[in-house]
Amino acid sequence: MITVGIVGGTGYTGVELLRLLLRHPQVQVSVLTSRTEAGRRVDDMFPSLRGHTDLQYSDLDVEALKACDVVFFATPHGVAMQHARELVAANTKVIDLAADFRLQDLAQFEKWYGMQHACPEILQDSVYGLSELNREKIKQANVIGNPGCYPTTVQLGLAPLLKATTALIQPESIIIDAKSGVSGAGRKASLGMIYSENADNFKAYGVAGHRHHPEIVEALENISGQKDVFDHILFVPHLVPMIRGMLSTIYVNLTEEGDQADLQALYETFYANEQFVDVMPANSSPETRSVRGANQLRIALYKPQPNKLVILAAQDNLVKGAAGQAVQNMNLMCGFAEDAGLNGIGLLP
Amino acid sequence: MITVGIVGGTGYTGVELLRLLLRHPQVQVSVLTSRTEAGRRVDDMFPSLRGHTDLQYSDLDVEALKACDVVFFATPHGVAMQHARELVAANTKVIDLAADFRLQDLAQFEKWYGMQHACPEILQDSVYGLSELNREKIKQANVIGNPGCYPTTVQLGLAPLLKATTALIQPESIIIDAKSGVSGAGRKASLGMIYSENADNFKAYGVAGHRHHPEIVEALENISGQKDVFDHILFVPHLVPMIRGMLSTIYVNLTEEGDQADLQALYETFYANEQFVDVMPANSSPETRSVRGANQLRIALYKPQPNKLVILAAQDNLVKGAAGQAVQNMNLMCGFAEDAGLNGIGLLP
Amino acid sequence: MITVGIVGGTGYTGVELLRLLLRHPQVQVSVLTSRTEAGRRVDDMFPSLRGHTDLQYSDLDVEALKACDVVFFATPHGVAMQHARELVAANTKVIDLAADFRLQDLAQFEKWYGMQHACPEILQDSVYGLSELNREKIKQANVIGNPGCYPTTVQLGLAPLLKATTALIQPESIIIDAKSGVSGAGRKASLGMIYSENADNFKAYGVAGHRHHPEIVEALENISGQKDVFDHILFVPHLVPMIRGMLSTIYVNLTEEGDQADLQALYETFYANEQFVDVMPANSSPETRSVRGANQLRIALYKPQPNKLVILAAQDNLVKGAAGQAVQNMNLMCGFAEDAGLNGIGLLP
Amino acid sequence: MITVGIVGGTGYTGVELLRLLLRHPQVQVSVLTSRTEAGRRVDDMFPSLRGHTDLQYSDLDVEALKACDVVFFATPHGVAMQHARELVAANTKVIDLAADFRLQDLAQFEKWYGMQHACPEILQDSVYGLSELNREKIKQANVIGNPGCYPTTVQLGLAPLLKATTALIQPESIIIDAKSGVSGAGRKASLGMIYSENADNFKAYGVAGHRHHPEIVEALENISGQKDVFDHILFVPHLVPMIRGMLSTIYVNLTEEGDQADLQALYETFYANEQFVDVMPANSSPETRSVRGANQLRIALYKPQPNKLVILAAQDNLVKGAAGQAVQNMNLMCGFAEDAGLNGIGLLP
Repeated sequence: MITVGIVGGTGYTGVELLRLLLRHPQVQVSVLTSRTEAGRRVDDMFPSLRGHTDLQYSDLDVEALKACDVVFFATPHGVAMQHARELVAANTKVIDLAADFRLQDLAQFEKWYGMQHACPEILQDSVYGLSELNREKIKQANVIGNPGCYPTTVQLGLAPLLKATTALIQPESIIIDAKSGVSGAGRKASLGMIYSENADNFKAYGVAGHRHHPEIVEALENISGQKDVFDHILFVPHLVPMIRGMLSTIYVNLTEEGDQADLQALYETFYANEQFVDVMPANSSPETRSVRGANQLRIALYKPQPNKLVILAAQDNLVKGAAGQAVQNMNLMCGFAEDAGLNGIGLLP
Repeated sequence: MITVGIVGGTGYTGVELLRLLLRHPQVQVSVLTSRTEAGRRVDDMFPSLRGHTDLQYSDLDVEALKACDVVFFATPHGVAMQHARELVAANTKVIDLAADFRLQDLAQFEKWYGMQHACPEILQDSVYGLSELNREKIKQANVIGNPGCYPTTVQLGLAPLLKATTALIQPESIIIDAKSGVSGAGRKASLGMIYSENADNFKAYGVAGHRHHPEIVEALENISGQKDVFDHILFVPHLVPMIRGMLSTIYVNLTEEGDQADLQALYETFYANEQFVDVMPANSSPETRSVRGANQLRIALYKPQPNKLVILAAQDNLVKGAAGQAVQNMNLMCGFAEDAGLNGIGLLP
Repeated sequence: MITVGIVGGTGYTGVELLRLLLRHPQVQVSVLTSRTEAGRRVDDMFPSLRGHTDLQYSDLDVEALKACDVVFFATPHGVAMQHARELVAANTKVIDLAADFRLQDLAQFEKWYGMQHACPEILQDSVYGLSELNREKIKQANVIGNPGCYPTTVQLGLAPLLKATTALIQPESIIIDAKSGVSGAGRKASLGMIYSENADNFKAYGVAGHRHHPEIVEALENISGQKDVFDHILFVPHLVPMIRGMLSTIYVNLTEEGDQADLQALYETFYANEQFVDVMPANSSPETRSVRGANQLRIALYKPQPNKLVILAAQDNLVKGAAGQAVQNMNLMCGFAEDAGLNGIGLLP
Repeated sequence: MITVGIVGGTGYTGVELLRLLLRHPQVQVSVLTSRTEAGRRVDDMFPSLRGHTDLQYSDLDVEALKACDVVFFATPHGVAMQHARELVAANTKVIDLAADFRLQDLAQFEKWYGMQHACPEILQDSVYGLSELNREKIKQANVIGNPGCYPTTVQLGLAPLLKATTALIQPESIIIDAKSGVSGAGRKASLGMIYSENADNFKAYGVAGHRHHPEIVEALENISGQKDVFDHILFVPHLVPMIRGMLSTIYVNLTEEGDQADLQALYETFYANEQFVDVMPANSSPETRSVRGANQLRIALYKPQPNKLVILAAQDNLVKGAAGQAVQNMNLMCGFAEDAGLNGIGLLP
């Protein structure tokens, strides 16, 4: 049994962490902080938790966090890096669900997040928490940068191709047409997020540039070991009138070798032992609702035209795309079964 | 460990039963039938189950069902009663999620369901499975009529008043204005149920008469021990453009005694030991999303005007209103902890 | 051709007024104000208007408003009453879509809206703009208090009963269980209004008290000529996960005379010449989508039990419940055909 | 004033045609047929039409259709071609909203629609009704094949590039990632279309092949005058949980010339005189709700990476993508103002 703290427990990733951790057999959530709600019971704000916890929000108290084995930051960008050094020094593991430890390239971080990094040396030692691809490093890590939701779909959607020993795709041809439910934008009082602005509507956003683009580029470089070839890939996110769910439709041009390879078999083999990545049979269509609330990413492959591959990757943005993957990383760091607390079945319908 | 069969596993209550039972620590689902899908893997139809089961649909085979300890009928009305006698004789417990064992009054059953009852003597021995109100009888039962979704909200919403030793309300004044998500209508290819007919729309239905009216009347008579006073209560259901969720707004006129009683305390006391009924603090508003996927019913009370009480009761129609309550009844019948397999937290947002 | 000003053109009633007035054959919108968006083109904020207008927002300039024939206030409560006196003096007609001119009872206004009234003498001369019930007075009015959305459904739903020469109902028995789409709460950056808090969810709100209660009471008193009997009627609003639409389910106990009367005929006769009120045939269910975008209110009646009447009244909260009725009032005040600019057909599906 | 017939008036394109034509100043709808609803009033099926028409459905009677000036077929594929010859002989103009007159390539028609064409010679003389691109031919046509909804977005989204005198794009690089609301699938009692299968969900469909692919290929060949280069473009449709609305995100690789051209200016010039195509300013995001109910297609352009263009094209699938464009074609054929009956403003919110 470990004790866990959650910094920033009033957002959607915070309450999702609680939903998972309150049912985790080896975890005791002992600290839950909020700048604005200190003293309030969490089940007063989120009645779904009534009967499941007596936790109250408290002000952020570093000493209390240092007493935890693991601290999750479900905060805006820039908070975790203020406290990571001190927590690491106290042997408290840190999992940041924001972007502070996602980009090793400091210039990119500063450009896209508009702030200087507070602890570059901690960043350097931190591990990017895409569990399936960095498992061994995560087990040894003290600080985890939990991946962005979109980048998770892209990396798991492309990894089998990029890890192959022969060149199967033309890397610069990658186009990611991504779609997310509204909860991906968080729990904020913002005009653009209100119901009547989003229901029965569909649109693209961030077409000219999105913070997940540099994260995707850096990640694909790391996975493939290739530099510079991904800089100009296209990433276009869209907003879907649904609460949870994310689907990326990824287009790649195949090389001649790629066109002749059995890509379905390649993917099935690559993920054969992965519990949370599901390669569906040929001609399947992964629906976001099939993973609603579940720590699962489903992939399907199509070759509708010669030399062209279409990859569909679906997940719940709040689970495999955020809180679930964070718990998966915690499980790896703490030596628990990787699926501890994560074997819930998706809520369908 | 018991073995369980599900008859009719292609509807929403069927797949919800599977979601719950596949995670139940003392249950092995061994039979799953479908008239139309025999031979097909269930996770092919419901990809949310991929990775969680290898079950295939089979044709209904009574011998296979008799080998089960418990059989759930998640079928249209009229199926369970065809098989109940034989199953009971084989010592197999039966839980019917349709209406075959909800009404003891045969004339009402025939009037509202348009069929003769196939086993009146089994019906007579069967128990109405409102777990909180009939717990002791359920423990002894062989056949359970699992309550309708609307009637569950009404009974749990009114029971503390009806069980009180003094007359707190005017029973004939009861008005139930009920609202349900669309999944309550099941999984059927019907024009009235398609997306574009229901989204961004709200309407009443069944105002002139609904099958749950006689069930509510009979149930309130049983709870209160009073005959004839509920015959003309009003029950008006409405359809909400959401998947899951049900809220009943119940209006009652209070007697002078009722007006002076501390009804909030009465409810809190009545349900003090009930894990699945949550009496919220004064001035709360139970939201359906707070119980999404959870076996929970939340109640709030208001007295906005003298002598008038407004009771709000919210549940997930597929869980506490159907599959969850069925599992709760199974737990009682089999001597398991009442919350075995049922302690999931609602999915919010 | 008249010139029209709109004060507060950034909310949903503002853009709905524009949708209607830009197609009105006798209207030129010449002024459109906003505290925050002065200088911005309105079609930049609301791209649905691209190609239909070159209007820009301007700061509120009373002289510019005085040059208009009619000024609509689509503002928060308390703005119209600051300018009404001056506009009336300049012979400019005022239609307030907020509450400044809805309640003649100053004490109630101050209690529910938390402000002193700025022009009680103008209020006294103003007319409550329920077009069908106050048509003759509206034609003569200089200042109109446009009714609240809920009160519109209640008044049109009950008027035939209350205007009857014999006592058909027990007035104190009235219960209004009302349901509204989310746009009724306006266009505001508020946490409670964001998509993920409202989608796939249903709840009651304002059960302990809502500003439309005193408006309903005063209106029913005026319609019926009866005092004091409506003070304790129940009004419980609910929030539906849809953009537009409102349905009130109204319950009343009938007197013996009411029970014997042909109420369907009474309603049909009462509204026989009303273009915007549709009494549907017996056993109909008015769906909100049938009036989406249309200035129409549909009514259906049921007598499911002896002595009890259920009235269903559906409208688009932004049209007949707000902007459409405001235009209807303008038409009456200006001597235009009552349906000028208002004969659009509901958008279904 | 012309008389118009609608064959197949019970689907969504049928009722949308009625919404538009009942408000068209030069049209009288005189015939409305349905195989299943003959004798029923149309406003009984679609209460949104109550008060706007007394039309009843009738059986399909060719003589009655021949008496019309224009007949719209809002039927399944294969119906219009059974009657076109006879109607043309009677000087009745035919506008088919299904696919009978979309593909000149008979082999493709038979492959994708599974039927032989019934009147190839009529097909040869028919005109593809993309109003903006084929205006002059449409004016002379007797038979119109009204374009598919997806192909409309693709053609209008790409035409300025394809019509340019220099090669601006690499035609074989075109990728269309398209998204549609559920009404695009029509009004059918189908399990896959019910509310609980589609709400709060997102998925791709038809990835391996979709009937609109050959239509797009043929249309792009006609626009560009180039053969064979579009055969292997990618078209991947997705289903959005909304009623109306369609957005295509189109990706193209630019040639060197294309990369240097001012494409924003090219598009603005190309559509300068088009009332129903709106080229939005740079960095805009066309939202589907901005055209809800309106005969409008909005386009925005992005160049997020060198040599790569992203085109966003949004429309209401039932209006510019179906019934609205059909009326636009009728206006052209009959010499009416092109926007007669089509100047409604989108319903936002």
